[in-house]
Amino acid sequence: MAAIGIDLGGTKIYGVRLEGDTVAAEGKAKTPTQGGPLGVVDAIAKVVSELGAGPKDTIGVGAPGVIDVERGVVRAAPNLPGWIEPFALGPALAETLGVDRVLVDNDVNVGAVAEHRMGAGRDTDEMLGIFVGTGVGGGLILDGQLRRGASGLAGEIGHVVVVPNGRTCSCGGRGHLEAYAGRAGMERRARELDAATHDTVLVELAKAKRMTSSVWAKALAAGDQVAIDLIDEAVGALGRAIAGVILTLDLQLVVVGGGLADRLGPTFVGRVEQAARSELFAGASPLRVVAAELGDRAGAVGAALLAAK
Amino acid sequence: MAAIGIDLGGTKIYGVRLEGDTVAAEGKAKTPTQGGPLGVVDAIAKVVSELGAGPKDTIGVGAPGVIDVERGVVRAAPNLPGWIEPFALGPALAETLGVDRVLVDNDVNVGAVAEHRMGAGRDTDEMLGIFVGTGVGGGLILDGQLRRGASGLAGEIGHVVVVPNGRTCSCGGRGHLEAYAGRAGMERRARELDAATHDTVLVELAKAKRMTSSVWAKALAAGDQVAIDLIDEAVGALGRAIAGVILTLDLQLVVVGGGLADRLGPTFVGRVEQAARSELFAGASPLRVVAAELGDRAGAVGAALLAAK
Repeated sequence: MAAIGIDLGGTKIYGVRLEGDTVAAEGKAKTPTQGGPLGVVDAIAKVVSELGAGPKDTIGVGAPGVIDVERGVVRAAPNLPGWIEPFALGPALAETLGVDRVLVDNDVNVGAVAEHRMGAGRDTDEMLGIFVGTGVGGGLILDGQLRRGASGLAGEIGHVVVVPNGRTCSCGGRGHLEAYAGRAGMERRARELDAATHDTVLVELAKAKRMTSSVWAKALAAGDQVAIDLIDEAVGALGRAIAGVILTLDLQLVVVGGGLADRLGPTFVGRVEQAARSELFAGASPLRVVAAELGDRAGAVGAALLAAK
Repeated sequence: MAAIGIDLGGTKIYGVRLEGDTVAAEGKAKTPTQGGPLGVVDAIAKVVSELGAGPKDTIGVGAPGVIDVERGVVRAAPNLPGWIEPFALGPALAETLGVDRVLVDNDVNVGAVAEHRMGAGRDTDEMLGIFVGTGVGGGLILDGQLRRGASGLAGEIGHVVVVPNGRTCSCGGRGHLEAYAGRAGMERRARELDAATHDTVLVELAKAKRMTSSVWAKALAAGDQVAIDLIDEAVGALGRAIAGVILTLDLQLVVVGGGLADRLGPTFVGRVEQAARSELFAGASPLRVVAAELGDRAGAVGAALLAAK
């Protein structure tokens, strides 16, 4: 018996077949840009069958957006093409695949589960996982279990206010962590600064495309001042948000992953730890902030682990 | 068999004898200003014996400051006269009283336990208790249990940053909740504003004494602009800090008590709920912020409840 895990992203569907703690097979496909949710269901089903799913295997999906885990419904997923209304992804996949149930959870929740069970948090019962990519998301493990909270929003650290009345977030709120430490918010700010005479190689490197994590890494390596300043702000914002969590929960471990953190590496994560400590009033906190270990695989692995439980 | 609970404050020692959920007796004494920790031990022991403690009764103390609960040590208690070094209050009391153990925990932790078991949180398994008095403290109940955290700092919401680089907090940090919503920080700010030509009745009412909660209530009732502005700031700061906790834990209930909140009543607490909701990105949160129910008794009752477990 194995567990199949799928990471459903805005551009890519990535899947693993997990046997115990071993990734026995991998598969992927492009996320279809046509056909809306039903097109996505077919594409996922194809990846699942290529992974050799048997009738006794459990199946889990990590999806972006707001998820009703109980009913397997993706309530809102702004990053999925043509995905406007809430959609019962779990039941639709279960029907297509001829299985009883497909578990669907938030992509950062499953990522946190993966880091907790097989990654940087494997020696602890409690951790916060933060994933810094296009946006910023988090998943909280307490007492060895993923905490979803009363309305499925536990760990949604990306929308904590770090600068009162600060920059506008993708959600419409003001001054949220995601506006300062998510790639989309940082890119918007970099383009604004570039247009306002603070020339930056970020714009030259990205051209009309997205500012990927490696564009940021290259600009930092080139000593670009706008990139340096915006990464400094991201570090400070992450530190402040983490300090707030520590003062609430007194956790010992925060794991930082996601595309941007993975690309910028341990130096970035170490600076986030320093920033968090500088905001903790009792300097003696046992807090450690460490880099995630599973990279791109965390979502699919975590979805498999969560489904296998 | 009963449980004795003591609330050790900067000016007053208040004790209860709890039989089941009933306060069967109360006692109090002034906190001695001479004699340091040993004077306090004697004063507490006197209150305990007046409450008719028997050899099988359990005894708990809620004390201000940073507590090592495991060893019964008050590590730092800036509000207790002559109390400079860490002091093993639990063992000292146990010896004086001739009992095996006296439990000592933080005054806001025991307050949260009391509100959870017998007050505004009695119908829930999870809540945050926030106590707004001279300072701002918090205690967190998860899964029916008080959470202390890795280093005893869980729930220390008073030192969450609400205004980056903002006002200096009693702990030396900048922009902490306590600097905006604690009476000491609010008084400091009111006197500054008064000195800088923003005349306020707060200073007239308080004269050379402390600005008590009823001074604040009177100034609000008189339409004093400085009082109105500072209470508005306190409400906003509490709302922001609570929103951060909700985004981390997705709790449904926050109970707000302490001298200032008790005195300003449900209107104040209702405004804090609105402020918190306005900072939550998904408006659909089931969060309720309600007034504490046990008033001054919460500390002693909670200490008794915690000792009885």
